[in-house]
Amino acid sequence: MGRPRTPLLDRERITTTALRLIDETGDFSVPAIARRLGAQTGSVYHHVDGRDGIVELLRERVCAAIDPATLELTPWDAAVEAWARSYRAAFAAHPRAIPLLMTSPVRAPRVLEQYERAVGVLLAAGFEQAEIMPLVIALENLVLGSALDLAAPETMWELTDRVPTPRLAQALAAVGDGRADRAFEVGLTAFLNHARALRAERGRGR
Amino acid sequence: MGRPRTPLLDRERITTTALRLIDETGDFSVPAIARRLGAQTGSVYHHVDGRDGIVELLRERVCAAIDPATLELTPWDAAVEAWARSYRAAFAAHPRAIPLLMTSPVRAPRVLEQYERAVGVLLAAGFEQAEIMPLVIALENLVLGSALDLAAPETMWELTDRVPTPRLAQALAAVGDGRADRAFEVGLTAFLNHARALRAERGRGR
Repeated sequence: MGRPRTPLLDRERITTTALRLIDETGDFSVPAIARRLGAQTGSVYHHVDGRDGIVELLRERVCAAIDPATLELTPWDAAVEAWARSYRAAFAAHPRAIPLLMTSPVRAPRVLEQYERAVGVLLAAGFEQAEIMPLVIALENLVLGSALDLAAPETMWELTDRVPTPRLAQALAAVGDGRADRAFEVGLTAFLNHARALRAERGRGR
Repeated sequence: MGRPRTPLLDRERITTTALRLIDETGDFSVPAIARRLGAQTGSVYHHVDGRDGIVELLRERVCAAIDPATLELTPWDAAVEAWARSYRAAFAAHPRAIPLLMTSPVRAPRVLEQYERAVGVLLAAGFEQAEIMPLVIALENLVLGSALDLAAPETMWELTDRVPTPRLAQALAAVGDGRADRAFEVGLTAFLNHARALRAERGRGR
């Protein structure tokens, strides 16, 4: 008989299937993965560390699209800016995974390493220990909120004759296409300017 | 016989049931609402304008918790700050509704009216037409990203001996409790400072 050349189940295929289910339906379940792969639910559990293990495989998969070279850039604010843009693009490809990944603890080793490097960039730039995680998380909120927004319809506000909204209509007409990208630029500029100002204060304190 | 004093189905009860399903499972369906209310699926459709109609009822319900008095405050940046805080609290009560509401078009009249008022605050403050929606959306990305973060576990990074992350460990120890609130403050301060600086530029241009 021999073994099939492509194994029916492996972590890669389980991860791909879970991500497809999330892209299509907003969630995944181990039985649904098994059905898609024509396998028994128990066989899936044989390959992964439970549902939580699949969530971490998903996190590694989505975060693998974040360019690691961004965090090597100098100066520190160029690194942070490039990381934020790459981070947004990675999650914008899978917006429906955002709520799941934002609300389960980070355990994936490669993703923890990425946080270690991001923290290292801010430490080396001179920020204080206690302000580093608030900065990282504020940037993530902006990046992930904005990645979710990329999944919104282009016409997000459907005006109606039932309520007069002349100022909203004018503001929408003035912004035209690409509102999501322009909003991200506003948020990112605001964040970077604030971080630069904070760092300048630290410098003066020494 | 007479009619029952509390009708089995009405828009309020359908909305409440849909919101409970989202809070519990992350999504809702019309058949699931019907099952919960002991009604036929067709009877639910009799009361609402389809699934999209229920989404708009949900939007009105969640947004009704945003204090409308915030947008009456002066000066404009006090209004924007208070609105953002109230907006975050309203959505933090239903974080699993955020992806659904962020990715379907806004049609609810009372919510459109709220955008009309927010746009009015920024217009009156002197911002240019084309920069108003990017500012509003950037603020929403921050508010909703941060509301989702409030649903994250308190221990969001589970460090492991398998990968050394000493700087991340120190940064996490330094921030302690309340990291989500501190990150929101960083983001909100950054946004408000940026908006104030933009407005000052506009003022100089006249």
